Amino acid sequence: MNAEELFRNIQRKKSFLCVGLDTDYKKIPRMLLDSEYPIFEFNKKIIDATAALAVAYKPNLAFYESMGAAGFMSLEMTIKHIRNEHPDIFIIADAKRGDIGNTSRMYANAYFKTLDCDAITLSPYMGHDSISPFLEEDGKWAVLLALTSNEGASDFEQLELKGGNLLYEQVMLSSSTWGSVNNIMYVVGATKARELESIRKLVPEHFLLVPGVGSQGGSLSDVAEYGMNDRCGLLVNASRSIIYADGTNRFEEAANEQAAILQKQMEVALKEKNLI
Amino acid sequence: MNAEELFRNIQRKKSFLCVGLDTDYKKIPRMLLDSEYPIFEFNKKIIDATAALAVAYKPNLAFYESMGAAGFMSLEMTIKHIRNEHPDIFIIADAKRGDIGNTSRMYANAYFKTLDCDAITLSPYMGHDSISPFLEEDGKWAVLLALTSNEGASDFEQLELKGGNLLYEQVMLSSSTWGSVNNIMYVVGATKARELESIRKLVPEHFLLVPGVGSQGGSLSDVAEYGMNDRCGLLVNASRSIIYADGTNRFEEAANEQAAILQKQMEVALKEKNLI
Repeated sequence: MNAEELFRNIQRKKSFLCVGLDTDYKKIPRMLLDSEYPIFEFNKKIIDATAALAVAYKPNLAFYESMGAAGFMSLEMTIKHIRNEHPDIFIIADAKRGDIGNTSRMYANAYFKTLDCDAITLSPYMGHDSISPFLEEDGKWAVLLALTSNEGASDFEQLELKGGNLLYEQVMLSSSTWGSVNNIMYVVGATKARELESIRKLVPEHFLLVPGVGSQGGSLSDVAEYGMNDRCGLLVNASRSIIYADGTNRFEEAANEQAAILQKQMEVALKEKNLI
Repeated sequence: MNAEELFRNIQRKKSFLCVGLDTDYKKIPRMLLDSEYPIFEFNKKIIDATAALAVAYKPNLAFYESMGAAGFMSLEMTIKHIRNEHPDIFIIADAKRGDIGNTSRMYANAYFKTLDCDAITLSPYMGHDSISPFLEEDGKWAVLLALTSNEGASDFEQLELKGGNLLYEQVMLSSSTWGSVNNIMYVVGATKARELESIRKLVPEHFLLVPGVGSQGGSLSDVAEYGMNDRCGLLVNASRSIIYADGTNRFEEAANEQAAILQKQMEVALKEKNLI
C-alpha cells in the first residue's frame, strides 16, 4: 500500500485510527481461555468488532513473544485473519527492530514475507544500513522511532546536537533521504503534540504514527490540529483503551464503542481540514 | 550470573568467546533438512562441538523470527538444550529490543522468563524507562547498544552533542547510572577497536559485548589490547566464521577448529594481562 492508497482508505472510512493489539493473556476475558489459541480468538473478535472504524492494526510483538512459540502462532493467525477478512487494513508490526544489514534483512523477511505485514516499527540508533533492508519492496514501510511518548524520550531523543538540532530532528532529517513518503513513517508520541508543529516543518509530507492517545494521556484534537497534512498524514493508535474497554463478555461491543468515539472525533478533524 | 561468576567461567575456560547463533535455514548442511527442527538440530551440534571453548552463546532473534512460530520453537529448544547440557553457559538473546515501560516489561518476561536467557541486547534510543524493566531481576542483564560495528554507526551514534560528548558516549554515561556492572553491558563493535581506549575511561568496569570479529573484519588482538579490564570485561562474539566454517558433514569439526583458534588467541591475551 502506498501513501495515496492509505489516504484513500482514511477518506473512505473517515478514520485514521490504528488499533494496537497489545494482547495480554492475563487481561482477556476468562471465557476465551478454554480455546486452543485464546490470544488469537480475542484478537479476531476485537478486529471484527472494530475493522469498519479503523484503517490499521498494530500488533505489539512483545506480547506475542512473551508467550513463546504459541504466541507467535497466534500472531500469524491474527495477521492471516486480517488479510482474509479485512483486506483494506494496513498492518504494522510494532517490533522496534534494527540491526546490522544482514540481520535487518532477516527481520524484513520475517515481517514482510513470513508474516505479510505492511510495515514495521524500527529503532534508528544503528543508522542507514540497519534501515535500508526494509525499504526495498514496493508497498512495504519502515516506521522509524523519532520522538516517543514515554518519559525516557528526554534521555537521548531530545538531546541537542552540536549543530543545534535535537537528536530526533536529526533522525528525521537524515533518514527522510533514505527512502520516500511511500515507505518511511515516523513515530511521534501523542504526548508530544506541541512538538508536532516543528516536526511538520521537517517532514511535511510523511505519515506519522502517533501512539499515546487514551491510556497514555495524549490529546487527539491537539494531534490533529498540529500534525495533519493535506493527505491526513496521521495514523493515531489506541491500544488498551479500546481492546480492554470491558473485561466481560461485552468486550467486543465495548471495543466497538470506544473505537467509534475516536472515529467520530477523527471524522470531525478530517472535515475541519477539508479532507473529506 | 553476576560479573564475578562470568569472570570465573572465563578464567576456567581460558576463553571469552561468545558464539553467535545466526542460524540460517539456507546455510545449514542439507542432510539436516529432513529432521523436524533442522535449525535446532544444527544449533545442538554446533553447541556441543564448541561449548568447551566458549563462555556464551548469542542466538540472533531475526533468524528465528524469519521462520515464524517454527523458528521460535527451535529457539526454545536450543535454549533448553544449553541449560540442560551446558549449565555454565551465559545466554544472550540478541534482540535489540526497547519500548515503552509496559512493553519492555513484556519483552523482559519473554526473554528472561519464557525463554530463560541471561541477557538481552537493547537499543537505548527510548531512554531509561525502556531499559529499567530489564534490570529488576538479579543475575539478568541488559546489553545496551553503544558503538556498533556497522557503517551506519556514524549516522547517529557518533554525532557530537552540544556538551562535546558523542551520542554513544552519552548513552554509556547516562545508562551506567541506571544499573550496575552486574546487570548492564555495552555493545561495542570490534571494528571500532581504536575507540575502546576512550570507552574504557567512561565505563572501566563494565563488560563489553564485542561483535565484528571474523566475517566483519575486526581484530581480536586489538580488542583485547584496548578493551580488557581486570575482570577481562569482554565477551567477543563470532558467528558466521564459526557456525558456517564448513557446509558439509564436517561442519561440527570445522566449527570446533575455528572456535579453538579464537580460544587460543584469547588464552594468550588473558595471560598477557595476568588474568589466568
